[in-house]
Amino acid sequence: MKRILCGVRAVSEALRADPRNINLVHVSDASPRGALAEVIQLAQAAKLTVEPTDALALDALAKGVKHQGVIAVCGGDYPYLDLDALLQHARARSDAPLLVALDEVTDPHNFGAIVRSAVALGAHGVITLKDRAAPVTATVVRASAGATEHAAIARVTNLSRALERLRDEGFTAVGLAGEATTSLRDLDLGGALVLVVGSEGSGLRRLVRERCDHLARIDLAGPVTSLNASVAAGVALYEAVRQRR
Amino acid sequence: MKRILCGVRAVSEALRADPRNINLVHVSDASPRGALAEVIQLAQAAKLTVEPTDALALDALAKGVKHQGVIAVCGGDYPYLDLDALLQHARARSDAPLLVALDEVTDPHNFGAIVRSAVALGAHGVITLKDRAAPVTATVVRASAGATEHAAIARVTNLSRALERLRDEGFTAVGLAGEATTSLRDLDLGGALVLVVGSEGSGLRRLVRERCDHLARIDLAGPVTSLNASVAAGVALYEAVRQRR
Repeated sequence: MKRILCGVRAVSEALRADPRNINLVHVSDASPRGALAEVIQLAQAAKLTVEPTDALALDALAKGVKHQGVIAVCGGDYPYLDLDALLQHARARSDAPLLVALDEVTDPHNFGAIVRSAVALGAHGVITLKDRAAPVTATVVRASAGATEHAAIARVTNLSRALERLRDEGFTAVGLAGEATTSLRDLDLGGALVLVVGSEGSGLRRLVRERCDHLARIDLAGPVTSLNASVAAGVALYEAVRQRR
Repeated sequence: MKRILCGVRAVSEALRADPRNINLVHVSDASPRGALAEVIQLAQAAKLTVEPTDALALDALAKGVKHQGVIAVCGGDYPYLDLDALLQHARARSDAPLLVALDEVTDPHNFGAIVRSAVALGAHGVITLKDRAAPVTATVVRASAGATEHAAIARVTNLSRALERLRDEGFTAVGLAGEATTSLRDLDLGGALVLVVGSEGSGLRRLVRERCDHLARIDLAGPVTSLNASVAAGVALYEAVRQRR
């Protein structure tokens, strides 16, 4: 099994995070400049093989994902954590860890953008489903602008059970639900917290809802009554981080 | 010229906003249920022709945009406003209007998601460029979940000049810039306000920056130093609305 990272940002974030995961970097054989030249320097500094590759071969490797003339080939699958390892990772970084759990988020662009927001806003991990969810594909890596390579992502088979486990560990679970009567800004979002985000179409499943300590909405004013899933997750993370500051 | 709206949400939002713009609604000829049946009811209530259409013909109309078995055909182009009309629209709705201006946002999914956030969070209009920007295509309508049909969108040829005009009208212009020294939360975002959002790749152009009263960043903590453009716009709108409440 090998894993493909496409595009300047995805490859350079992977090089910064841990170049040992990368076997080889393919670059377009046109004379590189700007951001592409920087990626090549990073790869060379990490003593990786940089292989000039023609456009057709790059396109074939990328399988439809935009590559901007650079593709990294990694050994093995995405290094998912299990829930225990994710908890350990988060606890090592904060006394009051902040996690995001995704219930059936299947759109790779939304998944990627949420991972990017989680990493950029300083959350300590992302939990997603093994089935009925987007895995970390090259499209997700690219949509995350390479944030997947810095992120701690756990996959679980049963999200309600994972939330139960988190509650036993002292986490408060807050589920985003447009129809909730409580506003996110009226909740205390301090302490160990897991924000639970549902799919765009159908929101949180019943059992997942029931495992949340609170359901909360983002206050909306307009005739359109919901946000894009990745925007909603970003706003919720922003509000949590704002309150914790 | 005719305009195509694809998918349950886009078509139903258009029907709710103003059915007079719609000439005809095509639906898949399978017996409709759930959300699709509701759209048909809305169309029939508006006395529109609902035409059963087979899957191949729907696909041909949609040209690659997901249609979920329903497509509305509208007469003419998207009803863009000019800047004067947008200002009039906004002033009629608020003494302290909130606008979003987009500098070269070319990605239709980001554009659609930003229009959706603007409408959902209660902003009064969106300003975008005539050239070097995504026009309101069927992909944008769908990415906005139909919010384009409720939105007031002005297209301008010169964004710096538009910002100058807005400043003459008493607006404060705040540009989002990751490298700004001021944090968005430390600014007073009350009063007539235009949030200026740049493209994901290159941010705001120099002349546009210079026309902003303030440049501000969203506070980020992680190794990834930027958000997706639509998430950044959503968070900035949320922060503005939060302060104004």
